[in-house]
Formats: sequence, structure tokens, C-alpha cells
Amino acid sequence: MQNSQNTKLPTSDSIIVRYGGEIGIKGEWTRRIYERRLRNNIENVLNYNKIKYTNVIKKYGRIYLKTSITKEASLKLSKVFGISSLSPAFETTSKISDVVTKSLFVANSALHRGNTFAVRCRRVGDHPYTSLDICREVGHQILTKLSELNLRVDLENPDVEVGIEIREDRAFIYTETIKGVGGLPLGTQPKAVCLLSGGIDSPVAYWLIMKRGCPIVPIYFDNTSFTDESTTERALNAAKVLFDWAIGFQRRMYVVPHGQTLTELKEKCNERLTCILCKRMMYRVAERIADMEGAEGIVTGDAIGEQASQTLRNLRVLTTAAVKYPIHRPLLGFDKTETEQIARKIGTYEVSTQRAKECTAFPRKPTTSADPQKLLEAEKELNIEEIVERSINSLRIVNL
Amino acid sequence: MQNSQNTKLPTSDSIIVRYGGEIGIKGEWTRRIYERRLRNNIENVLNYNKIKYTNVIKKYGRIYLKTSITKEASLKLSKVFGISSLSPAFETTSKISDVVTKSLFVANSALHRGNTFAVRCRRVGDHPYTSLDICREVGHQILTKLSELNLRVDLENPDVEVGIEIREDRAFIYTETIKGVGGLPLGTQPKAVCLLSGGIDSPVAYWLIMKRGCPIVPIYFDNTSFTDESTTERALNAAKVLFDWAIGFQRRMYVVPHGQTLTELKEKCNERLTCILCKRMMYRVAERIADMEGAEGIVTGDAIGEQASQTLRNLRVLTTAAVKYPIHRPLLGFDKTETEQIARKIGTYEVSTQRAKECTAFPRKPTTSADPQKLLEAEKELNIEEIVERSINSLRIVNL
Repeated sequence: MQNSQNTKLPTSDSIIVRYGGEIGIKGEWTRRIYERRLRNNIENVLNYNKIKYTNVIKKYGRIYLKTSITKEASLKLSKVFGISSLSPAFETTSKISDVVTKSLFVANSALHRGNTFAVRCRRVGDHPYTSLDICREVGHQILTKLSELNLRVDLENPDVEVGIEIREDRAFIYTETIKGVGGLPLGTQPKAVCLLSGGIDSPVAYWLIMKRGCPIVPIYFDNTSFTDESTTERALNAAKVLFDWAIGFQRRMYVVPHGQTLTELKEKCNERLTCILCKRMMYRVAERIADMEGAEGIVTGDAIGEQASQTLRNLRVLTTAAVKYPIHRPLLGFDKTETEQIARKIGTYEVSTQRAKECTAFPRKPTTSADPQKLLEAEKELNIEEIVERSINSLRIVNL
Repeated sequence: MQNSQNTKLPTSDSIIVRYGGEIGIKGEWTRRIYERRLRNNIENVLNYNKIKYTNVIKKYGRIYLKTSITKEASLKLSKVFGISSLSPAFETTSKISDVVTKSLFVANSALHRGNTFAVRCRRVGDHPYTSLDICREVGHQILTKLSELNLRVDLENPDVEVGIEIREDRAFIYTETIKGVGGLPLGTQPKAVCLLSGGIDSPVAYWLIMKRGCPIVPIYFDNTSFTDESTTERALNAAKVLFDWAIGFQRRMYVVPHGQTLTELKEKCNERLTCILCKRMMYRVAERIADMEGAEGIVTGDAIGEQASQTLRNLRVLTTAAVKYPIHRPLLGFDKTETEQIARKIGTYEVSTQRAKECTAFPRKPTTSADPQKLLEAEKELNIEEIVERSINSLRIVNL
């Protein structure tokens, strides 16, 4: 048999989609909902990318689909939440002669002179052979038919793994496994509203929430003239990057004018409380938007101790402003470097570090330990109902 | 010059402690508090490990200390929150002749035949030379005096880095850098109470909170006879491992009898709500303990969607039971595999996977979408005040 060492892998025709242990251990009813959602999300991503495909089928804890551009499709799908890994594959029947012939063909394309290899087989269904039979026969044929390549079997740490998945009357053969992003399928959890500044932290926080299945509704508080259009632009761009992880879902962002509120706060209240009071007003408006959107929580990008407003004390004082919804803070335990690392991975770092005007309302000495009593007194100076009403009436919805 | 290729590195006499960018960018007042705390925590760990040391001094964004067992001490200190890296080092004066002689001595011990190396110098203070002068002179001397080793300079990716830190009249020379755990010094944030089950998730959540500076007060709810002493044992062991990251801090854990409460819930309320109602009672008791401890928040190990009680909807319904304190959930955005990875790193995985009786009160079909109205009705069947009072009166405090 001739080894085509310098030619490309012949075009595979299928993709094996694996979704991790967390979905697998759900009760049957829940698992079916998760699997159906994952399938929908997969189809949305393929359609969005104009990738032609057929036969998206779920079988024995995998999803299989057919397409002619398996590598490109796999890379796109590797960003679908819930997928743990993918393999471009070659489909054939589960007849042992077909499995062996196709495996040999696939191995021939992937193996190079002197390589070590292993054959792994997983099988579901009734067959006149065991998985071990398949491994032995395919291994033997590879060694015999490709003898001029000086191949060696190494089950521990092979250069090339020939994977064979047999599902009833079909078999899928592959040599490549692409890591997926993990998490749970988007849409298996309710929506969450997210306070998006556009800085490094908030997009990472919301990506993590999406990863666990929650579609997000970003809210940007526009503090012009303490900020300007560059700040707004940055937030819109960050939201766009996040929505690229949510193909098929709503791309709606709320922009709430907040400059007048901030001006009032600064005029009427102790300067050291500015950030706390500002955020408390944001939470109140966010609760109203959560009502409108049918969301189940408010998410922020706070990390303990990163800024003055994020001491454990101040997080407590902030939280009491939200009465109907929990404030979820997925970055609580993150170091800045860890957040930056994820931002780079998910594509928001570049956007978040573009030039934008930082809020000039930031006081010289923000409190790190706000007194709840003083805060309530300060808020007595404000007509909170009116501010929230004004914010809701003046917000605009942007479809990105 | 003779290269002692097979002998050990001569005993270094100092340690350079680096603490990351997050402390460095704090305002001066806050930074000083953080540095003082870090210094205290370092001394506590050294004392606890019976490591003799002198001269723990803070200078220009570093902490330097003297000890004769620099490697062992550095490894212990690499677990002190707030430290980004450490280097066992050799101290000398900042006279150029001393720096060069000592550097040559250090390089000679670390370099092997054919190695590439680089010299890096950072300097604070007034000196009759620049950092570049030092690098050039030391590099030149190494190449000349150790010529028989066939060394080569590689500034990009050297086998050995000879680091030189000059601080006014002192210089520290090193070739090894040990990664620290990062985070913020423990005790720079207020305390948090933590609902510790002892399973894989909760210890990781509390470690992350400690990493950001908060001392923890674990609370274990003892659900005997739905669980048994193996479950209690697991929680106590997990707390011990966590406290090993908090040398010098309180090692106090609360054990609250909760079995009777759970029995009452099961008798009086819809079975599908059991876990939600059980956790809501825990939150209420935790609030009372937070009052007693002067803590500023309640932390749990919830990850969105991991269990039925952790859907975004149910997290919302749970949270409303806490009225004074925020519920912080640092694992919200974590996949199980990510949590397990940290558990292994911090040493809790082994404890958390030891055999323990899982709670048998878990219902067959727990709700994934609790109705707040039905929940409030269910709770009307319970004398909540009385249950909380009973829990507080029957708790015991364990010093671990």
C-alpha cells in the first residue's frame, strides 16, 4: 500500500460532537432538554456560517452530523457552549471489513514514517465482534499494510490515535480531536441582565455566565459627560464580541443615560460615596430591566478587593440596593491576571483595552468601608423613584 | 575558574518576595496596609514552620528576608496569598566589584556545559553605574571566567537567568524564581462565613475567597440522620486543609445540627422543594452566625446549573432568604472539571472524595424552577424563627 505522506488528509465527511460529563449525569428528562438545545445551537452556528450539513443526529451520548468541510465546521462548533470536544471523522458501516478498510485508509493519511500509533474503539450495539477485536485487527492491518513506514504501537503516548466509534450499524473513524469550550448549552438556563462597562472584567464575567447556559442582556450606563462616546463605543464593541458566542440568541443591549443621575449624586451626597451610590442606582434600574426581560438575576464583573467599591464590605452595602434579584459576581475570586487571560482567550481583551475615557466622577478618596447608615442618609437626599423612572423612560435598546 | 557541576547550589542567604501588580497599583495608604499584612502573614508562616529568619524588610515594592534555608522557606511562602513569586538569593553590597564577584559565584553554581544564559538587573537608588553596565560586566566575566563551559548569551530564552536586584546599598543575586499563589494578603478583607459541605465544590469556593483576602468562618450543617459521621468527618477534614492556607488566622468552624429541621421540612412541605427550603434555612442561620462573627458576607459553592437547586431561577429563589448579607458564589461560572482542577491544586480533592454518606433527604424529582409564591406558602407551615433559634442554641464551635 502506498503512503501518501505529502498529500493532505482525504476529506472527512462527518463530525463527532462530544458533550461532557455534566450533561451526561443529568436526569433523563433534563438531559433530553439539554441535548435538544445543544443540537439547535449547533445548527444555528452552522447556518450562520453558511456551512452546509445534513443529519444532525443524537445517538448514545454523542451528536453526529455530516458535512463536507469538517475541519472548518469543527472549529466553529468548538465555540458552542456545552461541547467538550469534536472530531472530523469518516463514516462507514459497522461491518468489520468496512471498518478495517476505512481505518486503514484514514491511518494511511495521518501516519508518517517512524510514527507510533494506537487504535481505540468504543462500541454501542450488537455486533459479531468486540471493541478489542476491532483494535487488534485494525492495528494488525496497519502494521502489515503500511510496513514500509516502520510504525510502532504505543498505547500510552502515541503520535497518532486512530479512533473508531461504532454506533449500531454505523462506524466513525478519526485521528484528530479538537477541544471544545465546555460549559452548558446556551439557553438551558434563564436570561441574566449584565452591567457592562466594557472594561476588562465585565465581558469576562458575562462570558462565564453564558458558558453556564444563561443568555445575557447587557446594560450599559452612559455616564456622559463624565465619560464620552469612546466609552460607549467600547461597551458596544464588547457586547458584539460576547454575542458572537451566542449565535441564534437575542443581541439586544440596553443603553441607559446615567450622567444626570451621577451629577445629582455628586451635588447632593458625600463625594467619598459617589461610586457606591452610582452603582446602587444602576442595580435599581437593572432590576426594572430584569422585570422587562424576564431575567432571573443581575450579573456584575466585581472581583473582591480589586477596586475600592469592591471590598467585601462595600459589596455587601451595594447588594442591599437590589431587592428582587440576586447580584451574581462570577469573578469574585479572580486575580486580575486570571481575568485578563480569559479575556484574551474569548476575544474581548483587545476591545476592552481600546482607548476609552475613564469616568471622571471617580472621587479622590473613595470609601473602602461604606457605613450603611450614612449611605441610607445620603440616599434620602435623592428622589430614588424618580431617578429610576427617568432612567427607564430615557433608555434606548440597541440591536447589535 | 573551576565549575562545580556536580555540587549543589551553595547556600543562599536571602529570599526576595514579589507581590503582584494588584497591590502595587493601590493608593499609598491602602498599599501600606496590604504590605504590612503580607509581612505579618509571611512571619506567621515562617514561625509556624519553625524556620529561623531575620530582617523581614519591605523596600521598593519587594519584601526581603534572611534565612539559611531559603528553598524550603520559599516553598512554604509560595502558599501565602498575595505573593506572586519568590527567589532564593545571595545578598551582597551594591559595590560593583561585590556584585560581579557574587554573580560569578552564583552563575558558576547554576550553569552547566553548553548552557545559554542571560543577566538581568533591576536597580533602585543612586549608583555610579547603570543596570546595563552591570549586565554587561557580569555577562563578560561569566563568558571569560567560565570559558571552559562553552556558554552562550541568549536574551530571549536562556537556560539560566542570572537576576540581580540592587536596592540602594544592597544587592541580591538569584537564578531561581518560584511561582507564588497570587491573590491578596489574607486579612486585608473582612471575614466571610461559608457553608461548607465538604464536597468538591465548597472548599474550592472558600479557597478562592481566601485568595482575595477574606478570612473564612466555615459552617457545617449536620444533617444526621440523613447523613452520618462520615459526612461530618469529611467537612472537618476539608476545613483543616483550608485553614492550612490561613496560618495565623482563626481556625474556628461552626457545626449546626440540621437533621431535625430537615425532618420537619420533609414532613410539612412539598417534597420537590426540600433542597431549596433546606438551603434557605441554612442561609438564615448563616446570617445569625455572620452577625456573631462580624462577617460581611455568606459564601456558597454553587455553580450555575450543576444541580437542580442551582438553576439560575433557584439561585434567585434561594437568595431572597438572606436579608442582611449578600450570598457570594465564586464558582458560578465554573465547569465541574475546572473546579476539580483547583481542588487538586489546593489539596482538598482527596479529602472531598473520601467516602461519605450523601444526604438521603434528596428528593426523587427536585424542582429546577421553584415558584417563589409556593415557596412562601410552604414556609408558612414552618416556624422559621423557632427553627433558627433552635439551630443557634444547639450549635457547637470546633477549633481545628
